[in-house]
Amino acid sequence: MKIAIDAMGGDHAPKEIVLGAMKAAEDFPDLEITLVGNEEKINEYLTAHNRIKVLHTDEVILGTDEPVRAVRRKKTASMVLASQLVSDGEADACISAGNTGALMAAGLFVVGRIEGIERPALSPTLPTIDGKGFLLLDVGANVDAKPEHLLQYALMGSIYAEKVRGIQNPRVGLLNIGTEDKKGNELTRNTFTLLQEANINFIGNVEARDLLDGVADVVVTDGFTGNMVLKTIEGTAMSVFKMLKGALTSSLKSKLAAAVLKPDLKELKGKMDYSEYGGAGLFGLKAPVIKAHGSSNANTLYSAVKQTRIMVEHRVSEKIKDAVEK
Amino acid sequence: MKIAIDAMGGDHAPKEIVLGAMKAAEDFPDLEITLVGNEEKINEYLTAHNRIKVLHTDEVILGTDEPVRAVRRKKTASMVLASQLVSDGEADACISAGNTGALMAAGLFVVGRIEGIERPALSPTLPTIDGKGFLLLDVGANVDAKPEHLLQYALMGSIYAEKVRGIQNPRVGLLNIGTEDKKGNELTRNTFTLLQEANINFIGNVEARDLLDGVADVVVTDGFTGNMVLKTIEGTAMSVFKMLKGALTSSLKSKLAAAVLKPDLKELKGKMDYSEYGGAGLFGLKAPVIKAHGSSNANTLYSAVKQTRIMVEHRVSEKIKDAVEK
Repeated sequence: MKIAIDAMGGDHAPKEIVLGAMKAAEDFPDLEITLVGNEEKINEYLTAHNRIKVLHTDEVILGTDEPVRAVRRKKTASMVLASQLVSDGEADACISAGNTGALMAAGLFVVGRIEGIERPALSPTLPTIDGKGFLLLDVGANVDAKPEHLLQYALMGSIYAEKVRGIQNPRVGLLNIGTEDKKGNELTRNTFTLLQEANINFIGNVEARDLLDGVADVVVTDGFTGNMVLKTIEGTAMSVFKMLKGALTSSLKSKLAAAVLKPDLKELKGKMDYSEYGGAGLFGLKAPVIKAHGSSNANTLYSAVKQTRIMVEHRVSEKIKDAVEK
Repeated sequence: MKIAIDAMGGDHAPKEIVLGAMKAAEDFPDLEITLVGNEEKINEYLTAHNRIKVLHTDEVILGTDEPVRAVRRKKTASMVLASQLVSDGEADACISAGNTGALMAAGLFVVGRIEGIERPALSPTLPTIDGKGFLLLDVGANVDAKPEHLLQYALMGSIYAEKVRGIQNPRVGLLNIGTEDKKGNELTRNTFTLLQEANINFIGNVEARDLLDGVADVVVTDGFTGNMVLKTIEGTAMSVFKMLKGALTSSLKSKLAAAVLKPDLKELKGKMDYSEYGGAGLFGLKAPVIKAHGSSNANTLYSAVKQTRIMVEHRVSEKIKDAVEK
């Protein structure tokens, strides 16, 4: 199995990307990795490995670049070349921790959509209290979605949950402002009817306040709402932890007690840590394209490779194609 | 000043509603309150007060009632009669902790919209880390909003923040999936242009992850997204506290340390407690209609009365009317 990795994307590139790739190559003997990026910088961290190649390029897409324009103009950027390897059949999948919008554009223009899929969906797995997590899609690939798009998200999400996460008959919920069947705006009301008729385990509308309780395995929404919910979860969790830190250091007494609790609190924060779940898949493309978190360290990248492997092994893209054709 | 209060709405009605109303009547010598509901049940808690009257009715709108139908059919329900008192000029404003949808319907059909306001907006004040809070509107009165509606929300929110919350030149932000000017879906992109031209302190797009950091004083969004964000904040905060509780009781050692931290943690939870901020105003109606939290206790209701008083004193409805006419 061949995976192309953008070595220059993310806050800790190339170091953590290279280290994560090396760990993955060590653990998975069937894996061949191509690291795309500045060879000199990559070689600072890369120790010789016969299953890791480097494809050199000087060009990089920055986090501040306008996504679509960057992909069109920087044709030799590390992210674009990694996508090109997939498109050329030189790699089975690609991973980047760089500019999310640019990776979506590269996925769309370079790797290409599965025939029949109108819009790809960006699909992270988010933590739940019970540690099982849920798949949320779309979180921003398509901000003006139609009911038919959401139906395709439901199909794609259900396949992923079953094949990659090993959940039998995954529960698919429609994110809405109430659980009653007729609730919602025009988009969700129309989507509801489509999902009822689809060949999935549709459990109806689910509310945002129940997401972290694990109310569904797959939660379907338009990219605008999904992006809002994702960022609200991140922001709220961060804010609560910030306030908690303030409370725990407010006096000497608190500090002493907090020191005792440190391992418990660290574990708690770990539970809310998305990096454990790998990256966000860009579903609906001809091959797996995975967005690893921008702040990826070696472990995050390793998780993303593991996830990508399962997607390739289980031929998720092909299965999505079959489901859509039906 | 005369305020009508639905004594039967909310999880702890009528007891906590009556107690909160009595506290308010005591503290504000110009206040005349009409409690609407079952007289016998109200009198269990009401001690004689010459500025509190009871308007008896047996009918109540339940939390499970379909809002619009309930308001149309249960014409003598406590919530509907409280709204009717406002419409008849017998009260300057009304408060209910009951069915949110029904109160929105009663506000719309019984109290009525300000001429020129196309859609009222439900507008709670949410907590921020610094304790100052921000106004979010709309959180669900209108789930299929147009740019012109959001412009009106911005005007109404700005007036409220200035007059009621005493914020000079309040910062108005548009909730969006990125801070750049051209980001967003069709609705937010079109709204952005309208807000730039409006006579408010528009600070541009704000992201959901920065809300609790106090990035703006007034945050404008459509009712569907606002409802999502509100419930995501509630759900995430609740989940983190639930996990925290689990972590703090995982061992005897943790329990002992947690006991020391109890006051700090209680204070922290209090900061995330919406009840301190009063109720959610239904903006755009001819007179203030306030939705108090469903789990309102006497203090929450007292805060809601205080907030309603300021709205009446500062003639917020009239000022909104003037702003819209311009």
